[in-house]
Amino acid sequence: MRSALHVTYHVRSDASAIEARAKAIAVEQSVEMPVEAIDDARIRDAIVGKVASITEIASGHFTVRVALAIETVGSDAGQLLNMLFGNTSLQDDVILHDIELPHDMAAAFGGPQHGLQALRKRVGAARRALTCSALKPQGLSPDRLADLARRFAEGGIDYIKDDHGLADQSYAPFAARVAAIAKALRETDASTCYIPSLSGDLDNMRTQIAAATDAGLGAVMLAPMIAGVAALQRLRRDYPQLIIMAHPAMAGAARIAPPLLIGKLFRLFGADAVVFPNHGGRFGYSPETCRALAHAALNDWHGLRAAIPVPAGGMTPARVPEMLAFYGADTMLLIGGALLSAREKLTAETAAFVAAVKDYDYD
Amino acid sequence: MRSALHVTYHVRSDASAIEARAKAIAVEQSVEMPVEAIDDARIRDAIVGKVASITEIASGHFTVRVALAIETVGSDAGQLLNMLFGNTSLQDDVILHDIELPHDMAAAFGGPQHGLQALRKRVGAARRALTCSALKPQGLSPDRLADLARRFAEGGIDYIKDDHGLADQSYAPFAARVAAIAKALRETDASTCYIPSLSGDLDNMRTQIAAATDAGLGAVMLAPMIAGVAALQRLRRDYPQLIIMAHPAMAGAARIAPPLLIGKLFRLFGADAVVFPNHGGRFGYSPETCRALAHAALNDWHGLRAAIPVPAGGMTPARVPEMLAFYGADTMLLIGGALLSAREKLTAETAAFVAAVKDYDYD
Repeated sequence: MRSALHVTYHVRSDASAIEARAKAIAVEQSVEMPVEAIDDARIRDAIVGKVASITEIASGHFTVRVALAIETVGSDAGQLLNMLFGNTSLQDDVILHDIELPHDMAAAFGGPQHGLQALRKRVGAARRALTCSALKPQGLSPDRLADLARRFAEGGIDYIKDDHGLADQSYAPFAARVAAIAKALRETDASTCYIPSLSGDLDNMRTQIAAATDAGLGAVMLAPMIAGVAALQRLRRDYPQLIIMAHPAMAGAARIAPPLLIGKLFRLFGADAVVFPNHGGRFGYSPETCRALAHAALNDWHGLRAAIPVPAGGMTPARVPEMLAFYGADTMLLIGGALLSAREKLTAETAAFVAAVKDYDYD
Repeated sequence: MRSALHVTYHVRSDASAIEARAKAIAVEQSVEMPVEAIDDARIRDAIVGKVASITEIASGHFTVRVALAIETVGSDAGQLLNMLFGNTSLQDDVILHDIELPHDMAAAFGGPQHGLQALRKRVGAARRALTCSALKPQGLSPDRLADLARRFAEGGIDYIKDDHGLADQSYAPFAARVAAIAKALRETDASTCYIPSLSGDLDNMRTQIAAATDAGLGAVMLAPMIAGVAALQRLRRDYPQLIIMAHPAMAGAARIAPPLLIGKLFRLFGADAVVFPNHGGRFGYSPETCRALAHAALNDWHGLRAAIPVPAGGMTPARVPEMLAFYGADTMLLIGGALLSAREKLTAETAAFVAAVKDYDYD
């Protein structure tokens, strides 16, 4: 195959069946029909997926590397996901493990418009890790959320994101919420940057972006596996000035390796910051998975800008030194509930979190 | 909780831990923060998810029923999915099993604009099962695809869908492909209806719909888990005249019960026809799962129109009687590769498939 995308699957199979199973995956993810019924030699040669290698990694577990024709993908993020795992996602003996892209395809998607360095610059943090918290719970009014934002900012936090559950509900409509929070932040001395959460379809998200831009904001969050990866790709292209944070909701990561989906693909499609569940929190990712995910987001990869890894999900200020030892300075620490639990001491707790990150010895 | 959405999860857990685990899921899918840090009594009462019941279904396996506030969902399909399984999809001890919607929410989403009866009427099939095939492989030119379509139509098939891998690739761009196929079908006497596959973001899909409409077509297919469920919802609303078929690509159904995702939710958001992998084909769904899925698509449910179940994935004409015995007349049988394997006998094989469906004794 002249120009190919290489895809690695992890497959559970008997050793005697793995060759046929690997070939079936290559066919499912390309022509999806019996190959012997294809009378066009060009299609058999250039379009049908080819098994490049099969490696046993443990008894009954194999790595299958498949070459897919880049012609079948074109330039659409949704179609890339479709060709990587569309039908095979319905077969529970397979995990989508990794991809290797041709350089031209990576350049065409383009990755983050801003990336890690721009997120550092925006809050004047040259070398240290960045800090982040979340506005919640759902059900608060715009004024109450704005008050929380103000207190986080007074504690010196770098970024504040909406809880990913905040959409456009009647108790805190997007436009009213964003205006109130942006105003509260302008009234502080802080350089804190607020990242509201987009929801709905592409038109809804455009209206929300207009409201955010009107309020002077320069960053937004969305969940690519709910919004559709093509929506992420479109917003990246149409709003090049916007910083985009990706949330992992619905990433159902048990079937797609998190380092690939969140670290590589979300970055490829344009996320500047990628939120993921850190090990030892409320979610089941292992330290190895988290390390690989952060690596995938930061790695030199086809010249794309680095996306900043944002470990989250039940983190506490007490874990800051351990997390920084693990992730280093190229990370944004996101602590939500544990700061909010401080209630009337929220500003002081935030300040302590911020100080722990600033004072950490990064050498 | 005054007005609630009830969600059922299947959870793996020790009996001693299930109460805490169930409560943690209810919190994760609502406020996503420590409840004791919420000082607003209204939020604790009306917004925090509540565990309604816990039932042991097998040793170490529980059904957990959670009540979520409908206020947190609003009217967006993406946000509904987010509140049902957003963060919990990242925890591998939980499967999203089922939902019970308040009637008003079901009516607001509205379900299929056309549904099963309209798909019957369009092809003049009052009582029997419907037939469908697929245009593939990828890599064929518009003319070659149009020739296949003509031969399927001459065999008397009701519906022809694009392979879900056909997007807007250079070898068969959407507009050129759709025009060629529609023209080929107009030149036959058949009432065959062609369903092209949409891809890309909402704007791309609108452009594709314009091309399909220009070509005189009245039906389209999309994969809601790639396009985003909000895109399905939007197309349903903005193009009420269009029949919409939902494809299960990326449905990663191992973590969301297929009867819920494909049978109920795709129907709720507006799919008129739902494609799913039949048992005994290339995919791992059991007969029980398939039966439950078809039931969920057809069932009387809040007065929504029925979506027609479309079992597929490696089916053969030889299986027609068995499939009709299993699904009855309210189904569309989709056979692709097995007909295409007939090559120069494609029309005759299609005619035999069509005859088997028409001649089956439905009483």
